[in-house]
Amino acid sequence: MTLTKRQASLIAALRSRHGRKDSGLCLCDGLRACSEVIALRPDLLDLIVIREDFQAEIQYPVDPVILPAQDFDKLTQTVNSQGIITVSRRPDPIAPDAPLSDPFVLVLDQVRDPGNFGTIIRTARAAGLHEIVLTKGSADPFHDKVIRSASGAQFALGMRYFENLESMAETLRKQGIKTFYRTLPAGGDNLFRATDVFKNSAIILGCESTGVSELEGAAGLNIPMPGTAESLNVAQAATIILFDYVRRITT
Amino acid sequence: MTLTKRQASLIAALRSRHGRKDSGLCLCDGLRACSEVIALRPDLLDLIVIREDFQAEIQYPVDPVILPAQDFDKLTQTVNSQGIITVSRRPDPIAPDAPLSDPFVLVLDQVRDPGNFGTIIRTARAAGLHEIVLTKGSADPFHDKVIRSASGAQFALGMRYFENLESMAETLRKQGIKTFYRTLPAGGDNLFRATDVFKNSAIILGCESTGVSELEGAAGLNIPMPGTAESLNVAQAATIILFDYVRRITT
Repeated sequence: MTLTKRQASLIAALRSRHGRKDSGLCLCDGLRACSEVIALRPDLLDLIVIREDFQAEIQYPVDPVILPAQDFDKLTQTVNSQGIITVSRRPDPIAPDAPLSDPFVLVLDQVRDPGNFGTIIRTARAAGLHEIVLTKGSADPFHDKVIRSASGAQFALGMRYFENLESMAETLRKQGIKTFYRTLPAGGDNLFRATDVFKNSAIILGCESTGVSELEGAAGLNIPMPGTAESLNVAQAATIILFDYVRRITT
Repeated sequence: MTLTKRQASLIAALRSRHGRKDSGLCLCDGLRACSEVIALRPDLLDLIVIREDFQAEIQYPVDPVILPAQDFDKLTQTVNSQGIITVSRRPDPIAPDAPLSDPFVLVLDQVRDPGNFGTIIRTARAAGLHEIVLTKGSADPFHDKVIRSASGAQFALGMRYFENLESMAETLRKQGIKTFYRTLPAGGDNLFRATDVFKNSAIILGCESTGVSELEGAAGLNIPMPGTAESLNVAQAATIILFDYVRRITT
């Protein structure tokens, strides 16, 4: 079996925003992300391509296309590619008004950096969350760079999309969310001292450069910083919050 | 004032491992990192280069070289450069046997990824630590990519270098470190339940792919993960540990 011209152009197109948007498909590159989509969502797989020397204990739900190294390497952008690429349909998003399945929700408001976004998805999965809420202007969770940073965790979590924080709050209030926290560099409740912070709440993390958008009625939440740093990276802030939740449920 | 040919080649050379190593210098690119080196270590500055349209409230300790946009843009690798670059001498490392200034030390054992390494430095600074301990095989803390990821936090913290974990443990035992923790995906003490984890201790985080090297007499330390993820990114693990320390000292 070999790769058709159409398949090769599709893989190239999926590296671009435009190509991803139009196709409803997404690209995984590398062993970790590909293993996740194969294990978690075999129903979504369209195509698996491996390099002739690729070796891993994987049960392939569809027959992989095996390519000589020089042909495979043209398809990948990873410097040290591990020799596997998949193309799959995107998982359906969660309906905005579907019932919630976690005690609190993490909301990403215009988090644009693919590395940060992917890291947050991976960490949310490790913390045991079942979904991520995001607003328009955030990175595409199925961008290949986001998939790589998340090690494919987006196939284990649901994504719930909103136009902006106002429509998010209006809808999630009806699903039982009582408190909306905007993370702030200072002011508001101290994460480590606040008691009900993970109970029927939405915790909103914002854009790397401008912070969280305004939201009427939202409370503030800050992470204490004894050092002299101006701020934390948004992925680090998300990690601290997610694992303070883990600490509370496991101790 | 204009840039000499020698200065332009120096900036190019500092992007490479070889060029950095030989020169004893390092390169900061972008407003945040440059502001830090200018504010924290003006004594180390050799050269400041700005693009003609660069505007920021900075007190320049040395007269900047001002370049037309087309010349400046040749010097930078950042896609959206903010129009400032500095060249400075590297801060002196901390002597391996110098007294310790923090209640515990964070040890990075062959953490190679520049983004992860820089993020850990930035987060350690936010947590109030004064130094980072690292073993040979880790990323160079003064690599320009590490400086960018750390937003220049390496100019606020000391770096203490060791050949390997054995020489680190031997030396730091004499400085009063009683317990060495290797972070493990499972087994050992639970971070959130362990009581004396930040007292005269060294907490070792390892290489992204192979984990922490063996160390005789070291205890294990794990971060509980309720989710189904295989592991956490090393920068996220460091962040959780650093801010569990912050939680303990601030509540």
